[in-house]
Amino acid sequence: MRLSRYFLPTLKDNPAEAQIASHRLMLRAGLVRQEAAGIYAWLPLGLRVLRRIERIVREELDRAGAIELLMPTLQLADLWRESGRYDAYGPEMLRIRDRHERELLYGPTNEEMVTEIVRAGVTSWRELPRNLYQIQWKFRDEQRPRFGVMRGREFLMKDGYSFDLDEAGARRSYQRMFVAYLRTFARLGVKAIPMRAETGPIGGDLSHEFIVLADTGESDVYCDRRVLDLPVPGIDVDYDGDLEPLIRAWTSLYAATSDVHDAARYDADVPEAHRLRTRGIEVGQIFYFGTRYSQPMRAQVTMPDGSARLLHGGSYGIGVSRLAGAIIEACHDDAGIAWPDAAAPFDLGIVDAKAGDAATAAVCGDLHARLAANGVDALWDDTDARAGAKFANMDLIGLPWQVVVGPRGLANGVVELKRRATGERMELSPDDLVAKFATAAAVTPR
Amino acid sequence: MRLSRYFLPTLKDNPAEAQIASHRLMLRAGLVRQEAAGIYAWLPLGLRVLRRIERIVREELDRAGAIELLMPTLQLADLWRESGRYDAYGPEMLRIRDRHERELLYGPTNEEMVTEIVRAGVTSWRELPRNLYQIQWKFRDEQRPRFGVMRGREFLMKDGYSFDLDEAGARRSYQRMFVAYLRTFARLGVKAIPMRAETGPIGGDLSHEFIVLADTGESDVYCDRRVLDLPVPGIDVDYDGDLEPLIRAWTSLYAATSDVHDAARYDADVPEAHRLRTRGIEVGQIFYFGTRYSQPMRAQVTMPDGSARLLHGGSYGIGVSRLAGAIIEACHDDAGIAWPDAAAPFDLGIVDAKAGDAATAAVCGDLHARLAANGVDALWDDTDARAGAKFANMDLIGLPWQVVVGPRGLANGVVELKRRATGERMELSPDDLVAKFATAAAVTPR
Repeated sequence: MRLSRYFLPTLKDNPAEAQIASHRLMLRAGLVRQEAAGIYAWLPLGLRVLRRIERIVREELDRAGAIELLMPTLQLADLWRESGRYDAYGPEMLRIRDRHERELLYGPTNEEMVTEIVRAGVTSWRELPRNLYQIQWKFRDEQRPRFGVMRGREFLMKDGYSFDLDEAGARRSYQRMFVAYLRTFARLGVKAIPMRAETGPIGGDLSHEFIVLADTGESDVYCDRRVLDLPVPGIDVDYDGDLEPLIRAWTSLYAATSDVHDAARYDADVPEAHRLRTRGIEVGQIFYFGTRYSQPMRAQVTMPDGSARLLHGGSYGIGVSRLAGAIIEACHDDAGIAWPDAAAPFDLGIVDAKAGDAATAAVCGDLHARLAANGVDALWDDTDARAGAKFANMDLIGLPWQVVVGPRGLANGVVELKRRATGERMELSPDDLVAKFATAAAVTPR
Repeated sequence: MRLSRYFLPTLKDNPAEAQIASHRLMLRAGLVRQEAAGIYAWLPLGLRVLRRIERIVREELDRAGAIELLMPTLQLADLWRESGRYDAYGPEMLRIRDRHERELLYGPTNEEMVTEIVRAGVTSWRELPRNLYQIQWKFRDEQRPRFGVMRGREFLMKDGYSFDLDEAGARRSYQRMFVAYLRTFARLGVKAIPMRAETGPIGGDLSHEFIVLADTGESDVYCDRRVLDLPVPGIDVDYDGDLEPLIRAWTSLYAATSDVHDAARYDADVPEAHRLRTRGIEVGQIFYFGTRYSQPMRAQVTMPDGSARLLHGGSYGIGVSRLAGAIIEACHDDAGIAWPDAAAPFDLGIVDAKAGDAATAAVCGDLHARLAANGVDALWDDTDARAGAKFANMDLIGLPWQVVVGPRGLANGVVELKRRATGERMELSPDDLVAKFATAAAVTPR
């Protein structure tokens, strides 16, 4: 993409309303624009981040056997009356009346609707288990929206739902999602620690939150720091096998948010040298709730002996739009964002360091075309801005790699490659550069 | 995908509420489920269709130089007061009050918001032209939603917006979209005829609708049938070149819906043998409206001489969810849907014609794995249903190709390949089958 033809409205100054780094940087780097309190437009660069996150979430869920569908944003109030949640849900639910005075709501979550879909579509024990998910916009009418997309009102969430014949099956489904979440967050370049959590308005008796550690997080976190060094399951993890040992390893070390923190256990179980008290950002939460929805909604299947059996369920959320902010909280410095490769809006930036120079422009154009032909997305700053302004802009938007094409380097047959996160620089020929990224694109780890 | 692990709740009987083929078939084939009047959930098979349509729309717009962003579904009423449309828009606009009694609305279209975004992000003539689009859910509170997703209330639309310095530039942007639309619909396997149209609530003085001919369409259509034979611009079309001759060829033959039909001109210009009166489905519409929004909203840029210039705009819609229905209206028979390759949810279906037979199961599994490794998506019916029921189901869901693996064929080393649309059948070895589809996947025309 040529920057001169792109739409990347960056801001020179820090917006006054932004209190935390991700909010400030998302506005400054032209990722989002606020359209109302807690409601954001995703500008082209921000949308690319959202799509990269979505893709990884989708790949890992598909790998774990989940099936994608898409439910509407608006729902009938009567559906929520079936589960008893319509009246119980507070003012965070956006309630709407249509032209015929029918009561609708903008879905904050979808346990009721997906249960209705499965109730209608699954009748026999043979058709279980099933795990259905969607990536769709939700609305929660927060009293005080803040921190940009981290606590917005309209937000993009992956919500998934498992349906099993019994509690043992449902717990296996829960474990599969636990493992898929570990892989998803690791691939996105962040360390998300699973922590025992309260179930809140979803209900049930088992839940884990996945928390990215960051000083700006909303949650107080207490954990055994050895949990940070646990290995994430590899691509060869067998979702049909016994996941119990893996789950046990991840849940036996102490890790809890202040909501459920047990100071006595913490002191007793965690050696002082390993105690870590910090803050974190919740990026996902999983729930086992058994028959909480299937019972009031009569979602059941026929068993081999002809009897009816209520479905056992769980639900599984990932805050997709919130993750964009959480990744920035974990990956930035004073100059701007430093995207992990997997979430970056472009794989690299190309800086023409001497605007108006035919030789540098030709090399930039050639690199841009050859990288594209190899499946590498580059953003080429071909504008007539000064080199210094271009460098500062590249640091701000934080593409993982920057290629600087200048007359001095070209005289020696080289361009300069800079790693954004570390500042490390190397010189190499344009051919070697293309080869390096083409190879990386071909073997991108999943 | 193994059908035994998929979620494909097909219906045996025709739903009473469905009056037209696409509505009936989308419900029966498990593509969608109605959740409220005019509000649908897209089940896994239907979502795959939606994604395929989206992908082609996106590729053709990107090729034409448009840039994708994503605006929120909810908007501030005050934004629409700036253009004067808040009060003018009728009861089809879903108006909402949040917990603080702020007035919001569920966007039926986005001229105001995108103008606000460009007003804030573009300040100099250097940054024009720009063409921004999104694929996002919209809501129109139809008085009487009907025909399934064809006239739903919550619907997925591609809406794009161009911004130019003057009318000449804006007309070039309009022409680019005209050509991109011809290519998009042709790639999706339908014939969409551009017809001069009224501008309605969008405003402006130039508009074309793109109409797919189908007996069940809502619009009466009058045209010169020679328009059906015009060649669609190829992949090598030069969007920076002169598109005028191409547009002239497509607009000089008579084609109009009843809204703007001019009987006298029709009789005078169209030889009797070429007159075609039929019905059609609108799948896209494009508008040139000049300064209709930039003027009241003060969206302007600074010109080289320091003066301010209002932006000249157009907007461009494609009904993405409606297209799923329109394609079915154009492509079905008594047995079910017959998807064009490009919009099909899976590339082909594999039918194990003898459930319980180890040899047929092994060949099916092998085909399924080898096709997947070559980027070909197959749906493998590995259930224990009877062969006849499997064939009927495959015809209903309408994958473009069906592979039948039975013991008799295997004794001769062959499987049977059936083209859904024509019923044409051929026998070939499993190796040849994989080679045929792997090659097709590698050279899929764009």
